[in-house]
Amino acid sequence: MNTPQPALNSSALDIAQELARQFARTAAERDKAGGNPKFERDLIRKSGLLNLSIPQQYGGQGADWKTIFQTVQTIAQVDSSLAHVYAFHHLLIATVQLFAQPEQYQQWFERTAQHHLFWGNTLNPLDKRTIVQQVSENEFIFHGDKSFCSGSIDSDILLCSGFNEADKLLIAVIPTQREGVSFLGDWNNMGQRQTDSGTSHFEQVKVYKNELLLNPGPLSTPYSSLRPLIAQLIFVHLFLGVAEGAFEIAQQTIQKQKAWSKSLVEQATHDPYIQKHFAEFYVQIQSVRLLTAQAVDALQAAWNIGENLTAEQRGQVSIAIATAKIAATHTSLLVTQNIFQVLGARATTAQLNLDRFWRNVRTQTLHDPIDYKYQEVGEWVLTGKVPAPSFYS
Amino acid sequence: MNTPQPALNSSALDIAQELARQFARTAAERDKAGGNPKFERDLIRKSGLLNLSIPQQYGGQGADWKTIFQTVQTIAQVDSSLAHVYAFHHLLIATVQLFAQPEQYQQWFERTAQHHLFWGNTLNPLDKRTIVQQVSENEFIFHGDKSFCSGSIDSDILLCSGFNEADKLLIAVIPTQREGVSFLGDWNNMGQRQTDSGTSHFEQVKVYKNELLLNPGPLSTPYSSLRPLIAQLIFVHLFLGVAEGAFEIAQQTIQKQKAWSKSLVEQATHDPYIQKHFAEFYVQIQSVRLLTAQAVDALQAAWNIGENLTAEQRGQVSIAIATAKIAATHTSLLVTQNIFQVLGARATTAQLNLDRFWRNVRTQTLHDPIDYKYQEVGEWVLTGKVPAPSFYS
Amino acid sequence: MNTPQPALNSSALDIAQELARQFARTAAERDKAGGNPKFERDLIRKSGLLNLSIPQQYGGQGADWKTIFQTVQTIAQVDSSLAHVYAFHHLLIATVQLFAQPEQYQQWFERTAQHHLFWGNTLNPLDKRTIVQQVSENEFIFHGDKSFCSGSIDSDILLCSGFNEADKLLIAVIPTQREGVSFLGDWNNMGQRQTDSGTSHFEQVKVYKNELLLNPGPLSTPYSSLRPLIAQLIFVHLFLGVAEGAFEIAQQTIQKQKAWSKSLVEQATHDPYIQKHFAEFYVQIQSVRLLTAQAVDALQAAWNIGENLTAEQRGQVSIAIATAKIAATHTSLLVTQNIFQVLGARATTAQLNLDRFWRNVRTQTLHDPIDYKYQEVGEWVLTGKVPAPSFYS
Amino acid sequence: MNTPQPALNSSALDIAQELARQFARTAAERDKAGGNPKFERDLIRKSGLLNLSIPQQYGGQGADWKTIFQTVQTIAQVDSSLAHVYAFHHLLIATVQLFAQPEQYQQWFERTAQHHLFWGNTLNPLDKRTIVQQVSENEFIFHGDKSFCSGSIDSDILLCSGFNEADKLLIAVIPTQREGVSFLGDWNNMGQRQTDSGTSHFEQVKVYKNELLLNPGPLSTPYSSLRPLIAQLIFVHLFLGVAEGAFEIAQQTIQKQKAWSKSLVEQATHDPYIQKHFAEFYVQIQSVRLLTAQAVDALQAAWNIGENLTAEQRGQVSIAIATAKIAATHTSLLVTQNIFQVLGARATTAQLNLDRFWRNVRTQTLHDPIDYKYQEVGEWVLTGKVPAPSFYS
Repeated sequence: MNTPQPALNSSALDIAQELARQFARTAAERDKAGGNPKFERDLIRKSGLLNLSIPQQYGGQGADWKTIFQTVQTIAQVDSSLAHVYAFHHLLIATVQLFAQPEQYQQWFERTAQHHLFWGNTLNPLDKRTIVQQVSENEFIFHGDKSFCSGSIDSDILLCSGFNEADKLLIAVIPTQREGVSFLGDWNNMGQRQTDSGTSHFEQVKVYKNELLLNPGPLSTPYSSLRPLIAQLIFVHLFLGVAEGAFEIAQQTIQKQKAWSKSLVEQATHDPYIQKHFAEFYVQIQSVRLLTAQAVDALQAAWNIGENLTAEQRGQVSIAIATAKIAATHTSLLVTQNIFQVLGARATTAQLNLDRFWRNVRTQTLHDPIDYKYQEVGEWVLTGKVPAPSFYS
Repeated sequence: MNTPQPALNSSALDIAQELARQFARTAAERDKAGGNPKFERDLIRKSGLLNLSIPQQYGGQGADWKTIFQTVQTIAQVDSSLAHVYAFHHLLIATVQLFAQPEQYQQWFERTAQHHLFWGNTLNPLDKRTIVQQVSENEFIFHGDKSFCSGSIDSDILLCSGFNEADKLLIAVIPTQREGVSFLGDWNNMGQRQTDSGTSHFEQVKVYKNELLLNPGPLSTPYSSLRPLIAQLIFVHLFLGVAEGAFEIAQQTIQKQKAWSKSLVEQATHDPYIQKHFAEFYVQIQSVRLLTAQAVDALQAAWNIGENLTAEQRGQVSIAIATAKIAATHTSLLVTQNIFQVLGARATTAQLNLDRFWRNVRTQTLHDPIDYKYQEVGEWVLTGKVPAPSFYS
Repeated sequence: MNTPQPALNSSALDIAQELARQFARTAAERDKAGGNPKFERDLIRKSGLLNLSIPQQYGGQGADWKTIFQTVQTIAQVDSSLAHVYAFHHLLIATVQLFAQPEQYQQWFERTAQHHLFWGNTLNPLDKRTIVQQVSENEFIFHGDKSFCSGSIDSDILLCSGFNEADKLLIAVIPTQREGVSFLGDWNNMGQRQTDSGTSHFEQVKVYKNELLLNPGPLSTPYSSLRPLIAQLIFVHLFLGVAEGAFEIAQQTIQKQKAWSKSLVEQATHDPYIQKHFAEFYVQIQSVRLLTAQAVDALQAAWNIGENLTAEQRGQVSIAIATAKIAATHTSLLVTQNIFQVLGARATTAQLNLDRFWRNVRTQTLHDPIDYKYQEVGEWVLTGKVPAPSFYS
Repeated sequence: MNTPQPALNSSALDIAQELARQFARTAAERDKAGGNPKFERDLIRKSGLLNLSIPQQYGGQGADWKTIFQTVQTIAQVDSSLAHVYAFHHLLIATVQLFAQPEQYQQWFERTAQHHLFWGNTLNPLDKRTIVQQVSENEFIFHGDKSFCSGSIDSDILLCSGFNEADKLLIAVIPTQREGVSFLGDWNNMGQRQTDSGTSHFEQVKVYKNELLLNPGPLSTPYSSLRPLIAQLIFVHLFLGVAEGAFEIAQQTIQKQKAWSKSLVEQATHDPYIQKHFAEFYVQIQSVRLLTAQAVDALQAAWNIGENLTAEQRGQVSIAIATAKIAATHTSLLVTQNIFQVLGARATTAQLNLDRFWRNVRTQTLHDPIDYKYQEVGEWVLTGKVPAPSFYS
């Protein structure tokens, strides 16, 4: 089912690298413009990578998580906004597999694979403004606003959510074109500026019962609770990719620079302080790579187990991912802040727009507070208690 | 001469605070726009603060350095671009006092005091593109480009510089309106966006001998070498002001926030992790305040000594300022990066534009590499050797 | 009353420096031996410094806190165990002034001043094993053990404490020779090894009512609650002194060393990395000095106010001291750990015993957890609430 | 040849764990005593682990590096002195394989395997006091002192070294009992106290030509230059083991502790600050584990290549090990310093002797300056140049 496909995998990475090359040309500029990167989203559609996570029996490539995350990381090295919405597409495909049954999602997956449909997210369990009412045996009405809806604009299929009168979270899959669905286009933040993470509005949107993910439903079992862990591991790959991207640009940019007048050497690349900074970047990035690889392996193993996954096994995956996230958060902030210290004043020109690396990770690392990832890991170290599943743990 | 004027001083701070209140309203917006803050520069002119550093015998207020720096810091808390060009005005006034004689600058100062003239900078000793040729006994021609000219646009008087064929640095004071002077308006960097620190062009600009600062000339004595130290101490006040401004906004913004769902408390202000972060900010800012005050005292004492200042005495001031700069650099980056960690994802909205604090200090801290400030202090600790005077030490 | 005595002060510092010179000769050796430094304690007695804190009307020198703390810091530079017990002597003198009335302590002070009596501490409010029973109108019995009794052995006068049946803390001043008082001599810890901070045993010790500090009693008013703040500020001076001592030895030791073979220079003192480490030490130590001076001024001002001190004023002193303590803790650990990184492998020889600096501050910084000093400062920053007085805040 | 032996390997780890259990009982005490741990060295002899690195054809176990390092790390968790001399035994076995030919070392290895001989080190290329003179075709005289001779006392076979008149380093293998060899027993340093790393004295010691390692000789090829890398990787495992040992003791010790009075919880294990500290320890240790495993794999691959190893391949191993060493140095110092911050004042009792963890890594991390490991990695990042082989790179 999710068996690794070596031949395809290598090709997936090639494709991601080609996309990255294209995105890199305009990334600095598009960051400033913000808004919806329609042209680039269509390149992703055409690349075939949207099928990566769809099981082969539905026409997809059934790639393993390692392959999927590698493509995310590769794109994040040059454009963490596109990497984000691309990764969330795969998260949503996984969400349906974890919260629902094949008979329900088979058609969606087949259509997605055939037409390279892009899935978008309007699932934000902290925002309770969207209300769900059952109006008949088979019909529900979703009404209200929802914030932080990454990848919603220009999506083909939408994962939407709301709370019913019993305060129960209901999640549904609908065509983005469904009547009543609209997007405010109000995402204008300091980082991740092309993720369209703004507000969705549901104006009396009709949702059919067979569009609701009820069996087993959200976070209902240890296995279905892998969903937020996949989201967290996406963030880890975004942070790692950004750190790598910033590191690489710094490494290239400094090649021709002269050392500071007080240095004992002529070339910046021979300066002892600059060498030490780059070594520090390298050691930290290398650590994050390894912690991340370990977390991916843990997730894949749990994914392969399926519904038999125990709470304790799921908890171990959670700790592996939290560990990687702590390191990736720290490292990505350190690297993106300090590439400037080695590159000097001229690196601040808006043309290079090198601050976007910092703005992107500084924004995305705030998804949920890293202090509480430390807290979870520390609690586990000291008491053996794994984090209780939630949309953030 | 430079005797402190208690009554005036307190009033200077009041005026600076009133300016800060006005600047604060539009600072976030103007940062995005970039360009020349003409309206705000005129408010500074009208405030009378441009006279602060001009000795009383020329119609100025003869304020001490503590007062001048306090006004800089106060403005930097809300707008470090305006603080920068305002501070550089005073730096240029001091430059003339250090590099020339009263008979030469008396008129300039009197005119400045009378008309609230704003001085601008085009002195960048690292950029050697502006060439000076002597064309007659009393006439020189300045020709070429000069980069990083903070505060040049909309200035009334310009400190300009160039190198002659003997590679000697010549500095002159001319009206900004002098024929042949133009500004490319090409400053578009990630921080300090309203400092107009772009390129000046001198098209065969005529400069008269009595406009050249030749006696004693740049960095010719320990006393005249105080000039770069004043510049460095301005940066320290910019960094400190920015850190204070970011701290204050964070402190206010968090008041109404709820703690994270996993916290042991309800309110963000009661959360143990958030409290520890704020304590760390506070302790560091408080350290920088004290190191900075000590550096100001050292500068004032050296300034008061005048031409009898020894190289060793000048060196001690240099170390005091370098010490404060190291701490201020570290602290301002830490605070402006980590206010986000306490405030969370919603603080990244472009409307608040809170990243400008980080972008401003990240840009300005690159004026010269902080690693070599460490190097200078360490060399002094280990060998007793004070830094050799230069435009950066 | 506590007016600064310039002439005496300078002399007090001279005396402390002379003591330090003597202590330095044997400090490394005595650290290994541990136990009671009887010879050195007698040198302190003979120096006259024990009278420093005793008001002039009782035959003491009535020195201000700045002077007292300077002598503590000076001794701590070479021997933080002796500095500790010496400082605690002054803490106990102050304790009596804060918890009792002149008519009660006049005689004690006069005797102390006349005979250079050394006070010792057995006040540990966390250890409730010593029980107090009132056996008659004027007689009480103290019975049980008490741990962490710094400076108890070889003391002349003892501050002792216990809890009565109502769980009320009672504090008394008795001659150390009082029948039933004994010391187990069981202090054998990794640092502060000559502080005799072991267990005292009270075997049915008779204490008279007029030896109890009941008016106003412990922590009964904001003013009397200055006592724990003085203790905290003593620790700050110990940490600062140790950091300075380690820094100075490192600075001297490195003078003749060669740089590492891969260095761009010959002498260790010219090595860029070593210079940067020393600069970092210097900047941090300098910060701590200033924060500490500010805290001393705050304490002195509060001390001068006397019983009119408000809770808010006392709280401000508490914050100033906590701020200094956070910085001093961090700095002293950083410096004492990293002097080795600059000095290299040969600096680990037991003969030099340089690890004692780290062991001393690592031990003493654990008196109460620094995380909760951050917590107190952060809470104050965010809510304006000053720490509730306790024996640790 | 060096093929992994799964069955044996698992048994080697079991044996190491059993040794560790025994060593742990007396480690605190023996650290204070210092000197030669004869009893424990004999336990190592009896364990059979000294044969681990000896190829099977000579009667050894031919274990792979992963297995050997695991046993080192396991012992280091409780006693890094014994781990050091035990690891150096294997380093010396490898040295002979790298610097000489089988026909020369066959007999040594067979005897070692048969009699569980313990090899000791007196190879310190920085100390040039031991002079080598050739006195006949087959005889050489070694004369003079040599410092930092870890594991020399109580060894059976000695790797010794000296410089001849042409300043060429000559290395020989001799029986420790050879006439003229003596040890001053002068190792008395703050850490690694039972490594006997003191001075050896060679009094006109006769060495035969066939005892000299001349073909290919020290650091003569990329392959033979793996020797210092193995030494560096031993240090990495020492640091990692110590960090793990300190972490585990802290984790156990805190289980029954109460939280500080100001904490929001009752138990120390539930305290948010303590949880965060432990999480930080865990994340860092986990990073070091992965970087170390990667370095071991790199070394093993290079070892397997043999004399065909290129300078570039050797350089990559060097970088992998330097990367792990930077992280291990930082982490082991952080963990061993900060376990005290979570455990509090009572953890400083000499009985626990918990400071030995810090003293051990603080001492051993000074073998060669970590700043220059950063320098090497940074230079490689920036220029692609791998470190030139030396006894430290």
